[in-house]
Amino acid sequence: MSNPTAAMLVIGDEILSGRTRDANMYHLAGELTKAGIDLKEVRVVSDDASAIVAAVRILADTYDTVFTSGGIGPTHDDITADCIAEAFGARISVREDARAILQAHYDASGIALNEARLRMARIPDGAALIENPVSKAPGFSLGNVHVMAGVPAVFQAMVASVLPTLTGGDPLLSQSLRVMRGEGDIAGPLGKLAEDFQDLSIGCYPFQKDGVFGANVVVRGTDGSRVDAAVTRLARELEL
Amino acid sequence: MSNPTAAMLVIGDEILSGRTRDANMYHLAGELTKAGIDLKEVRVVSDDASAIVAAVRILADTYDTVFTSGGIGPTHDDITADCIAEAFGARISVREDARAILQAHYDASGIALNEARLRMARIPDGAALIENPVSKAPGFSLGNVHVMAGVPAVFQAMVASVLPTLTGGDPLLSQSLRVMRGEGDIAGPLGKLAEDFQDLSIGCYPFQKDGVFGANVVVRGTDGSRVDAAVTRLARELEL
Repeated sequence: MSNPTAAMLVIGDEILSGRTRDANMYHLAGELTKAGIDLKEVRVVSDDASAIVAAVRILADTYDTVFTSGGIGPTHDDITADCIAEAFGARISVREDARAILQAHYDASGIALNEARLRMARIPDGAALIENPVSKAPGFSLGNVHVMAGVPAVFQAMVASVLPTLTGGDPLLSQSLRVMRGEGDIAGPLGKLAEDFQDLSIGCYPFQKDGVFGANVVVRGTDGSRVDAAVTRLARELEL
Repeated sequence: MSNPTAAMLVIGDEILSGRTRDANMYHLAGELTKAGIDLKEVRVVSDDASAIVAAVRILADTYDTVFTSGGIGPTHDDITADCIAEAFGARISVREDARAILQAHYDASGIALNEARLRMARIPDGAALIENPVSKAPGFSLGNVHVMAGVPAVFQAMVASVLPTLTGGDPLLSQSLRVMRGEGDIAGPLGKLAEDFQDLSIGCYPFQKDGVFGANVVVRGTDGSRVDAAVTRLARELEL
């Protein structure tokens, strides 16, 4: 049995312009790996409705689960919810359950729930809300797509809400060997190892430190004894 | 005239598994913005030939220029060069110009140019080499695709080599306003501003600091006087 698959769609001009360094991809990748879900693809698109709709459709068709990040705030450039609705052919309007959450939050803060803030209660018909313990405005899940905020603290809280609801696979285990030789010196043994352990993923990540070349070899798989066996053999072959 | 467009393809299991935090997307995004080239889309795919070939084809067809990052080293999981060749229907083999660069480098270092290292001289027919001042193994440009290393220092050096060869547009200028109010308070004026300045991109990036909500409003455009006018009007409306 192979693990369930996932994709991520990051929505935001601020990433593509280089203004903001994305933090959510790195966070989600680590969490999915721990949960035994294989993140297979990430796309970053701008705040452009046709680009968002097209990406949502293809990713939702191709992978078991899709996570989106960004574009669900109160301003004019927050168009994600409408795009998700369009991708699924769902109606979208201010929903009473979402409005009630916002109303309670702003009443308690003495802030008016104005027209802009009410945009954050626009939720497609049929979607389930995702709790936002940080700033209240909810995300939502529609079909296999989970729509989350771009602000990292909120994104992370929403991931924590959604992940337990998903069926994970076997968690991916990994072991690393740090080898103080050039990648070209170890590529031969590594290639043979990869042939003999086709159930494992064997990656080689070179680095250069103080003028010395080295590489981190990472062996990943769901069967710990196989990972052990591969790392042990490699260490012996490289005489580490 | 709109600016030339670009896409980036990041190749690497290590990003998707959460082991490595990507640094190249952020770097390239900033450099392209300075050069007046609009980065419209980024995709991250795993070390999987069919995924790489499909992504290269669609991105090269859709955008003026494509940059790839990763998968051009000496190990078995470095399959980018072969995938680019396949995407373009080009032959690929060890090329003498690339071999000569590697031979000179390894001769000077007293290291053998073994079979694994020779993989890094596999360059598609018709491609132009991209210089690698850091560790010598070259990248290459084929058609509108520029193929670069994943190691950040090498990636950055290759970007610096390639960018002057591209035709840029007008550099994107930006100004920011830091507003210590909730996004929902300024969304109304912002939306009207965006309607009146449709030649500009107006983004709103909320933050929360010490329990206080604020937002950075970023106005971007190629005409500095328009950017000035929009920021001045917004500051007046918000009584900053």
